[in-house]
Amino acid sequence: MPTHSIPCILALNCGSSSLKFCLYGASDLRLLRSGAITQIGGHQGQFEIFDSVHHLLSGKTSACANIHDATGEIIAYLGEHEQDFTLSAIGHRIVQGGPNHREPELITDDLLQQLEDLIYLAPNHLPGELEVIRAIQKNYPKQPQVACFDTAFHRDMPDHVKYYPLPHKFQTKGLMKYGFHGLSYQYIMQKLMETHPEAKQEKIVIAHLGNGASMAAVDNGVGVDTTMGLTPLGGLVMSTRSGDLDPGVLLFLLKEHHLTADELDKLLSNESGLKGIAGTGDVAELLKMEEHYPKAALALTVFCYQARKFIGALAAAMGGLNRLVFTGGIGANSPQIRERICSGLGFMGIAIGEKANNSDIEMISAQPGRVTVQAMQTNEELVIARLVSRVVNNITTK
Amino acid sequence: MPTHSIPCILALNCGSSSLKFCLYGASDLRLLRSGAITQIGGHQGQFEIFDSVHHLLSGKTSACANIHDATGEIIAYLGEHEQDFTLSAIGHRIVQGGPNHREPELITDDLLQQLEDLIYLAPNHLPGELEVIRAIQKNYPKQPQVACFDTAFHRDMPDHVKYYPLPHKFQTKGLMKYGFHGLSYQYIMQKLMETHPEAKQEKIVIAHLGNGASMAAVDNGVGVDTTMGLTPLGGLVMSTRSGDLDPGVLLFLLKEHHLTADELDKLLSNESGLKGIAGTGDVAELLKMEEHYPKAALALTVFCYQARKFIGALAAAMGGLNRLVFTGGIGANSPQIRERICSGLGFMGIAIGEKANNSDIEMISAQPGRVTVQAMQTNEELVIARLVSRVVNNITTK
Repeated sequence: MPTHSIPCILALNCGSSSLKFCLYGASDLRLLRSGAITQIGGHQGQFEIFDSVHHLLSGKTSACANIHDATGEIIAYLGEHEQDFTLSAIGHRIVQGGPNHREPELITDDLLQQLEDLIYLAPNHLPGELEVIRAIQKNYPKQPQVACFDTAFHRDMPDHVKYYPLPHKFQTKGLMKYGFHGLSYQYIMQKLMETHPEAKQEKIVIAHLGNGASMAAVDNGVGVDTTMGLTPLGGLVMSTRSGDLDPGVLLFLLKEHHLTADELDKLLSNESGLKGIAGTGDVAELLKMEEHYPKAALALTVFCYQARKFIGALAAAMGGLNRLVFTGGIGANSPQIRERICSGLGFMGIAIGEKANNSDIEMISAQPGRVTVQAMQTNEELVIARLVSRVVNNITTK
Repeated sequence: MPTHSIPCILALNCGSSSLKFCLYGASDLRLLRSGAITQIGGHQGQFEIFDSVHHLLSGKTSACANIHDATGEIIAYLGEHEQDFTLSAIGHRIVQGGPNHREPELITDDLLQQLEDLIYLAPNHLPGELEVIRAIQKNYPKQPQVACFDTAFHRDMPDHVKYYPLPHKFQTKGLMKYGFHGLSYQYIMQKLMETHPEAKQEKIVIAHLGNGASMAAVDNGVGVDTTMGLTPLGGLVMSTRSGDLDPGVLLFLLKEHHLTADELDKLLSNESGLKGIAGTGDVAELLKMEEHYPKAALALTVFCYQARKFIGALAAAMGGLNRLVFTGGIGANSPQIRERICSGLGFMGIAIGEKANNSDIEMISAQPGRVTVQAMQTNEELVIARLVSRVVNNITTK
């Protein structure tokens, strides 16, 4: 280890078309660097690096063809800066570990093999995540790597939520509702515990709205329901995903349009949702287009309408609602979308203040509202770093 | 026409395993006879006939192998009683008429052909219904027959409810949300207009809970949303149907269990829902079993939990709720199920009185509740008769 090089935890967050990373001081979990490669597989990608207070240190166009190349770019960056930062451990967001892997876990050959065997549960996400792990392993063979599962937050959902109303035999291969975005929900709950300890006893809906979007119902600190199911394709309508459907829709597409299972997967994962309605799944773009393009307006209406319905459903599931938290790229940053989702929910005690909603402050509920409404930035990478620290310290103290 | 034989409208209601009929006086729509053949295709079927005040006139076991035989039995009964009743017109509940047939319509060869061409939209329901029409046509070639579509009630759902978030090209073959149980919703709304005219301006959820189960959101007299979609397989969990699913569940069954589209249809239509969880989809039976059989208790919990969530979702969709009406075999007749569904919905102003709920009276909301809660018998056959009368009188006055 070069002198003065800071021991770091590297948190890697592999999305469907982006790879984010953060470097945290191993001793104090202080953020040192963050960065992201965007639009992997596209032509307009960027590789940007920020310092600890999110000032841009470097930015360049980056046309990574795939997740393997993107990982290579980050490894190259780390190599160039090993005089400053020395990796002591690495953590990965892993979308799915099946019924038996929920808690953060040291990555071993055995675990990797088990995750390989679970690819069928998350065919659109796990392969890329495993590729990142393998590439990092190759370059940092001695550093412990930790898998942080997005399903952990939902592990305690009751049976009547968790199991599908299908014959029991189908559960053997792991057919159940897992829920995702768990690291984000975990961050929001940890943050709430610090700032609003009363949240521990509340009924809360957290709406993680980004390109992927889901909501979690949290009752007394426990995740009791969520909109996503076996896969991240379920629940709310999303940028390019359909969300929950009448199964008859899939049967129709299979029988009448003669789609294969793979074509159906591609259609419902990549060509549906807001993009299916309006040609693009980018909410910011849709907001700009809606005045002159009715389909953009329709897509946004569908998005907000479904979000409103799921808030109602999850509140009914818990028998009430004390707090509603918006997070994720859209949830934390789009006052218009928040305003539209909440409009009409006054009967449930949800009301947001126009001025607060359009400012940077977190607390956006109108004073008379019975439900506290907040807009919060999430931080999945910090949760990964905390989990890595916990797992690695457990090992060294054993 | 034999002397003193009363001109009648015959209303036929063809279910998946039953065929119900009612005879109404053509001039005054007074009920004269009703009857049903149950468990068609099973071994324990009954053919019962009731008089105008629902006293049993005759009952016998009836092991009809299929809907054709059942129609034959009813035609035979009508033949034996033509001295009493003369058919002047016949009406049929038709589950699905595609995007272009919603209003009640005189059945012509052309319409029949069009409905044949729409079987792919309701493969589990339309073929039986068409068979009944053809058999009646053969025996009563001169009497007008009218198709009464279950989708009519939902015809005015707005675009953001009606269209799926899929590329537009798939709409060409009729892929959209239709909604069903429309004749039942129509009956309930007509009845409410008579007894509670203020309902015209209200936000209402009608929960039609039977072996097939759905809910409709009615705002200012217009059906604005419903739980079922393209097919009667969507929405709530049902006796043997799964209800809405994460599409990933179907992809999983296709890819991992290698089910064909037809096997998947059979699984999700006939082997899932409460039956998938507990082996039987009969709610009355499950209520008897639940104390000693945890899976029966689980099935009932799932049913009530999902119903509760959909009430919350539909109320949120409308921005409030003034009235909740339970109907259908389970909704109208099971106080336990109503009580469990409503429990926890106090935060939305829903509260039912124990005594009223366990009695035969319709009004079951507790006094302090903001939402009026009712349990009402539905009467799809009367709606059919009214529609037939309207269509036939329009023809004769033209």
